[in-house]
Amino acid sequence: MIDYHQLAQQVMSRCEELGQISQSSKCLDRRYLTEEHKQANQLVGSWMSDAGMRTWQDAAGNLWGRWEASHEDAPRFTMGSHLDTVPNGGKYDGMLGVIAPVTLVKALQDTGITLPFHLDIVGFGDEEGTRFGSTLLGSRALTGQWPANWADLKDDQGISLAQALQNFGSSFEAVADAKIATHDLKGYLELHIEQGPVLEEKNLPVGVVSAIAGAKRFEFSVTGMAGHAGTVPMPMRRDALAATSEMILAIETVAKEHGVVATVGQISNRPNGVNVISGFTTFSLDIRSEHDNQRDDALADIMDRLENIATKRNVTLSHQRTHAANAVHCDDDLQGVLRDAIAAQHIDVHTLFSGAGHDAMAIADICPVAMLFMRCDKGISHHPAEAITTEDVSATLAVLSHTLQSLK
Amino acid sequence: MIDYHQLAQQVMSRCEELGQISQSSKCLDRRYLTEEHKQANQLVGSWMSDAGMRTWQDAAGNLWGRWEASHEDAPRFTMGSHLDTVPNGGKYDGMLGVIAPVTLVKALQDTGITLPFHLDIVGFGDEEGTRFGSTLLGSRALTGQWPANWADLKDDQGISLAQALQNFGSSFEAVADAKIATHDLKGYLELHIEQGPVLEEKNLPVGVVSAIAGAKRFEFSVTGMAGHAGTVPMPMRRDALAATSEMILAIETVAKEHGVVATVGQISNRPNGVNVISGFTTFSLDIRSEHDNQRDDALADIMDRLENIATKRNVTLSHQRTHAANAVHCDDDLQGVLRDAIAAQHIDVHTLFSGAGHDAMAIADICPVAMLFMRCDKGISHHPAEAITTEDVSATLAVLSHTLQSLK
Repeated sequence: MIDYHQLAQQVMSRCEELGQISQSSKCLDRRYLTEEHKQANQLVGSWMSDAGMRTWQDAAGNLWGRWEASHEDAPRFTMGSHLDTVPNGGKYDGMLGVIAPVTLVKALQDTGITLPFHLDIVGFGDEEGTRFGSTLLGSRALTGQWPANWADLKDDQGISLAQALQNFGSSFEAVADAKIATHDLKGYLELHIEQGPVLEEKNLPVGVVSAIAGAKRFEFSVTGMAGHAGTVPMPMRRDALAATSEMILAIETVAKEHGVVATVGQISNRPNGVNVISGFTTFSLDIRSEHDNQRDDALADIMDRLENIATKRNVTLSHQRTHAANAVHCDDDLQGVLRDAIAAQHIDVHTLFSGAGHDAMAIADICPVAMLFMRCDKGISHHPAEAITTEDVSATLAVLSHTLQSLK
Repeated sequence: MIDYHQLAQQVMSRCEELGQISQSSKCLDRRYLTEEHKQANQLVGSWMSDAGMRTWQDAAGNLWGRWEASHEDAPRFTMGSHLDTVPNGGKYDGMLGVIAPVTLVKALQDTGITLPFHLDIVGFGDEEGTRFGSTLLGSRALTGQWPANWADLKDDQGISLAQALQNFGSSFEAVADAKIATHDLKGYLELHIEQGPVLEEKNLPVGVVSAIAGAKRFEFSVTGMAGHAGTVPMPMRRDALAATSEMILAIETVAKEHGVVATVGQISNRPNGVNVISGFTTFSLDIRSEHDNQRDDALADIMDRLENIATKRNVTLSHQRTHAANAVHCDDDLQGVLRDAIAAQHIDVHTLFSGAGHDAMAIADICPVAMLFMRCDKGISHHPAEAITTEDVSATLAVLSHTLQSLK
């Protein structure tokens, strides 16, 4: 018998340990292809080795561990999530979905359980897209979906993705080798904290994800005219930051009207001096809905209103789409296995949508995917206040254990 | 008869020559108490000598030239501006106000004109405050307003003001000697480019300054709650950047309503991630008016509206005042002399206030001050694109000539 509570304690302490690896001394911030990315791979890799798994790192910087089946020609099943974080992020978003299954593997092995498939557990190097502005870099490398122009994506230091890969010991060209074989790939299961308030409201530790909402992302640039804060009369100004402010409020209004979520999370301003009128700003837009057409209707409305604001204020607006994904539906059979596993723990089975994007979205291109959501405190994520309980981890490990043993 | 057009060409070529003296090879950058400050004083001093002026450098590094009246006990009148620049600055901001009168003096003398007062022309060593972070160092030395703690002001190399004065061949203690006598000082007149678009819009070469606006500056902080861009419903958000956007628009609206200028030039946002709802922002406010009570009424209105926005959006707002200066009014009699001189050139007389600070603000502590603004291209200053025309310089020289000959 596996002591899931004890195992959950180990998961919690491992999340704590991994959460110490940060490029900032003030907060948790671990971005793609950094020194801290390397360190995280080393630490999680050591836990994989400890669980008797064979480990490797692919050309995109993703960490892999394999619990091999007794038959070499057995099919493969994959679990995993991402090891990067947003700036000032939490310790569970992503990491839990790697640490929990790795920790479980060791316990399953110690109990003498074997599986009829190779179990691959992957820790993706980039899901958040914080460093290069484009998301799911890790999982998209597995599906061979890196467009050539990504080589020139730049981070905020001006370092290109191609250069960063080289600095990491790989290369942009080599990432093609990270594409995985699909003929014997049975599916992909991702455990993740909910990052929303639904399970907490239902008082449930876990829930089955039916679909992942589709997101689109843009970067907008507003060019006005810099000037002296004291000498340019208000009516003669072409203030890029004031124009951007009006655009941010328009985006908020449209999102509420259309019942979607839209977020301007990133802004930059030049010259950004106390006594200088802003001449140039950039800002991001992230817009999501469970229904692609609803999202696109809202987006069309936003584009109209932003153009009108730019015209009215005599500033130039341009935009670039940096990400687009349609909603992804989770595999019915895998959902069924998860539901049975939850019911077996005497937990009410609840099915919900994911408003957040996940690596499973990318992997859905090559195999059936499923997701298990775990409750998190107040739905908070992407924040140091992100919190989970050992009891919920314990229930989740039991569900995962049952799931793995049920998969044919 | 003075050929003002020819004289204007000489002014333009001298601005060009002075504009070559820079501590940077890439742009015009000439800061206080540098080797280039010395070189600028030498060059302008040679033009002063050429105009038959007696020249000296005071203990604060200001350059002086005196066109002596026939009676030794005649009163003194002062003109001038500053010889330092901002980094990547233009060739006219400050320098024009020294070069134009120096060049004019020679022409007046050649025409046999005499003045009933000693005409002192001063080139201030520091107005921009770029090197030591505090502005108007040159003109404040004339009024004896250097506080003792300025000795420890540091430049970006860690060199203190006291040390820099020593390296320049003076000392912090000696600067007290730069204070000038006031009993026989009739006034101060400063010519400066407008640094704004008003005269260009009015199609006028010059304008009379009524007052130099007083500025107040603040830094605001908005604390909301960071969250995941996909999972937090719009009505549950406490988005700091959206709140800040509403505040920036409120500031703009209030400024227009009250007839003041108010600028949010600086913004920072945390965590500033594409897919994270903003949790914390800071932004600057710079607000100016020629009437202090008008500015303070607008400010009170702004504070009210910002508090209301914060309350409505459930974010926390705090602020800190970082600067406060009252408006300085230009002397009515001197304004009158300038108006008559402009009208005599058949130029429409336009009066405007200065939104930017100038040396005249400091000198107003010890004598009546006046300012003549000259049109500059698109109102651009503090930038290599700063530009003026020979025609405008010609008109300006005629106005200055008439002014000097009208002063009693």
